[in-house]
Amino acid sequence: MKLKVKSLKFYAGRPVAILNINTANRMNVHVDERIKLLCNRKEIIAVVDAASGFIKNNEILVSNEVVEELCLKKGQLIEASLAEEPESSVFIRKKLECHHLERREIEKIVKDIVENALTETEIAYFVSAVYKCGMSSKETGYLVKAMVDVGEHIHFKGKVVDKHSIGGVAGNRTTPIVVSICAAAGLIMPKTSSRAITSAAGTADVMESIARVEFSIKEIKKIIKKTNACMVWGGSLGLSPADDKLIQVEKILHLDPEPQLLASVLSKKIAVGSHHVLIDIPFGPFAKVNKNEALELKNKFEYFGKKFKLNLKAVLTDGNEPIGRGIGPLLEIRDVISILKRNPEAPKDLEKKSLFLAGQIFELCGKSKKGEGILLAQKILNSGAAFKKFKQIIEAQRGKIPQTFSFGKFSHTFHVEKTSKIKRIDNKKINSLGVLAGSPMDKSAGLYLFKHVGEKIKKHEPLITIYAESKIRLNEALRFFKKSKPIVY
Amino acid sequence: MKLKVKSLKFYAGRPVAILNINTANRMNVHVDERIKLLCNRKEIIAVVDAASGFIKNNEILVSNEVVEELCLKKGQLIEASLAEEPESSVFIRKKLECHHLERREIEKIVKDIVENALTETEIAYFVSAVYKCGMSSKETGYLVKAMVDVGEHIHFKGKVVDKHSIGGVAGNRTTPIVVSICAAAGLIMPKTSSRAITSAAGTADVMESIARVEFSIKEIKKIIKKTNACMVWGGSLGLSPADDKLIQVEKILHLDPEPQLLASVLSKKIAVGSHHVLIDIPFGPFAKVNKNEALELKNKFEYFGKKFKLNLKAVLTDGNEPIGRGIGPLLEIRDVISILKRNPEAPKDLEKKSLFLAGQIFELCGKSKKGEGILLAQKILNSGAAFKKFKQIIEAQRGKIPQTFSFGKFSHTFHVEKTSKIKRIDNKKINSLGVLAGSPMDKSAGLYLFKHVGEKIKKHEPLITIYAESKIRLNEALRFFKKSKPIVY
Repeated sequence: MKLKVKSLKFYAGRPVAILNINTANRMNVHVDERIKLLCNRKEIIAVVDAASGFIKNNEILVSNEVVEELCLKKGQLIEASLAEEPESSVFIRKKLECHHLERREIEKIVKDIVENALTETEIAYFVSAVYKCGMSSKETGYLVKAMVDVGEHIHFKGKVVDKHSIGGVAGNRTTPIVVSICAAAGLIMPKTSSRAITSAAGTADVMESIARVEFSIKEIKKIIKKTNACMVWGGSLGLSPADDKLIQVEKILHLDPEPQLLASVLSKKIAVGSHHVLIDIPFGPFAKVNKNEALELKNKFEYFGKKFKLNLKAVLTDGNEPIGRGIGPLLEIRDVISILKRNPEAPKDLEKKSLFLAGQIFELCGKSKKGEGILLAQKILNSGAAFKKFKQIIEAQRGKIPQTFSFGKFSHTFHVEKTSKIKRIDNKKINSLGVLAGSPMDKSAGLYLFKHVGEKIKKHEPLITIYAESKIRLNEALRFFKKSKPIVY
Repeated sequence: MKLKVKSLKFYAGRPVAILNINTANRMNVHVDERIKLLCNRKEIIAVVDAASGFIKNNEILVSNEVVEELCLKKGQLIEASLAEEPESSVFIRKKLECHHLERREIEKIVKDIVENALTETEIAYFVSAVYKCGMSSKETGYLVKAMVDVGEHIHFKGKVVDKHSIGGVAGNRTTPIVVSICAAAGLIMPKTSSRAITSAAGTADVMESIARVEFSIKEIKKIIKKTNACMVWGGSLGLSPADDKLIQVEKILHLDPEPQLLASVLSKKIAVGSHHVLIDIPFGPFAKVNKNEALELKNKFEYFGKKFKLNLKAVLTDGNEPIGRGIGPLLEIRDVISILKRNPEAPKDLEKKSLFLAGQIFELCGKSKKGEGILLAQKILNSGAAFKKFKQIIEAQRGKIPQTFSFGKFSHTFHVEKTSKIKRIDNKKINSLGVLAGSPMDKSAGLYLFKHVGEKIKKHEPLITIYAESKIRLNEALRFFKKSKPIVY
């Protein structure tokens, strides 16, 4: 069918064609399907969107990605037809039937994800296929390799170390502390983090409350040259572009199929050239995994670590309740800074876990003897060297350490109703509560936990404060707190 | 986050918000996710698209569906935040875990599909959940009921009959013949059909080659009042809007989970008020289902028919090879017309099957005694009454019977290479061949089959002609024919 190109400069990050709804009906294509566009003897596949109003019948509005590829001019006629399905959709269907995929087939799927040849809908089919049918070790290996191959790579001189937590624990902001300690000890730590996926805040969100986190690879190299480390958002670096896309689609239903979790973590660590990698697997009834699942995951991580020549160790940690007192970007960074500053009121649980992780990294990379890592970590923290390093990194990331903190304009504190002991604090509900209060979008929104599991509490003592930037947000959070009871005593 | 409304009138059929790519990154939303928009004390949930160029940072372009709901003006500031996930996405995740869904949960999913509260990606997760885990009879019953409840309903006076084929056989254009015979016998047959989903042509595509097929419900009532029947496209009628949406998403990976197939057919038949429904289930190695699957499907159709108070019968037919000689809209309608006109060269297989189906319908609704339906059908066909009725319907649908036919500007005929017998003709490959030649978009493109399975063939006899509207299309089809060998002898 011949369609007239409408002029309106827009970039969509991939080839997109907006058709009039009637034209789309006549062509029998729907939103998210693909058409083939032919002009000037060139062709390109574009994803379809449909609208009416500013797009008339027989007109087509294409994104600049199409304009450039086909050398189009305004008003030109182009030939549009249904696109054949991409080869990888056959492989996705094969996986949906729980068949084994070959190396070439997984490579093609990953390549098509990165090149936008697969739509979100098709990727969702792939995610649910892997979710339902799993993947063999062989397939998972192919997936890691394919994901590494399509991404950018960085190399650093020196001992390059890294850590990753599989998440699921509210608060738990160990990364800035661990990175500061390790970098102060002379290790190279190019730490990339994600923004919140299902939690109230990701490390990137927390760092962003006091510094920039979006940099180019060139800029990151500079930051690391200056400070030994960085704490940046990994999403825009293209280190594992297939993973970035998969995460978007998984996030929609909060799915996190194990093979993709493994591939996600490993591909990013390989891409930044890490040699020594520590994986933190919090487990427990209120964590992402129970003890057996945690052990199994540990084995798999270490198996693939070896396969890809990483010195990788996975440790199981207590994931039963939130760690630290603050939940939300600014509330969490205050916890971090108070520990680095050796403030006596700083949360002990967060400090303890951070020292443990840093110590493990020291032992893993040979910086300390077995059993002595934690002592070195403690020494560096106590000496103020870790805080000095943290300030350096924040400065290199064009940020500043705040002198004082102020949280959400609106707040409410719930008090203890009867003298008792805290029985449990539900990580998932605490995260949802933080999100309802406005975290991570509102940097100063979130929660402050006065108590942890096992602590004795007295009637009328404060239990939790909720901070929000608007009355509406605060009320939503209060309603949820009363209904869902995240803290049981 | 406050965003400025950009003015550009467009309708997307649902609330859509286009954000600048950087703004979307800062909000941590991605294409196909949802945001909540607040303005003038009203709120609405919109699906996100991202672009740059004509959309600046902190600007938002919303579809008219949003403008109207929120009473927006150009340049106004609106508050955008991440939307909570719809309740039904929790139920979809539940189904992905193969848990049983309650009536209320299925109703909510269907309602959210129709109201565009679920995106294509979420619907894909639902489809693959049902594909992998199946549905119990109870769940399927809920699904049918929910799909009927959200759609439009029509009621006709008289004996309302209907037919449906589960498809998978190339050609096989029985519908126009069966409808003409039944309507000539005084039965009411409000036949709605689909366009091609995976085949080279759907009944709606074929009818559209000589008449209009898109009508409002009001117009359809008029056509049926005049002629007893219609043959229209069901997609725009809103009879089963949930199904229309599900089919779009299933089509992407050619999935057709059984519970959704059952719900799709039944909901549409119930919506048009059919009392007597015949289901045609072609089976065989080159059909959609084998004999056992066909029998099982027959039982399920009849079980749910009873449940929903339809007089429903399912018949198993030979689905092993294409039926008729033409594949493609105009080529198929020529077969149909040649049978109705009692042309001695008309394809006998198509005639035989059409008479069988019409006869079954006569017996089902009590128009004929058991065993005598086919005789009545034959009589009506031979008398010319069916052709007269067909012409009436075509005229009512503002079409015209062509006096002569001409097919694709470019064509090529393959000839038999050795004297032998036709062993098999692969339906799927024949359909793909038709699609490559340009069918159904190019109405005059397609195939002509000179031979059927079992026929003796002599060297140099013509085997198949491929018609296309462009040289490129023809060459693609020729290449595919040589590579895939759809006809084996």
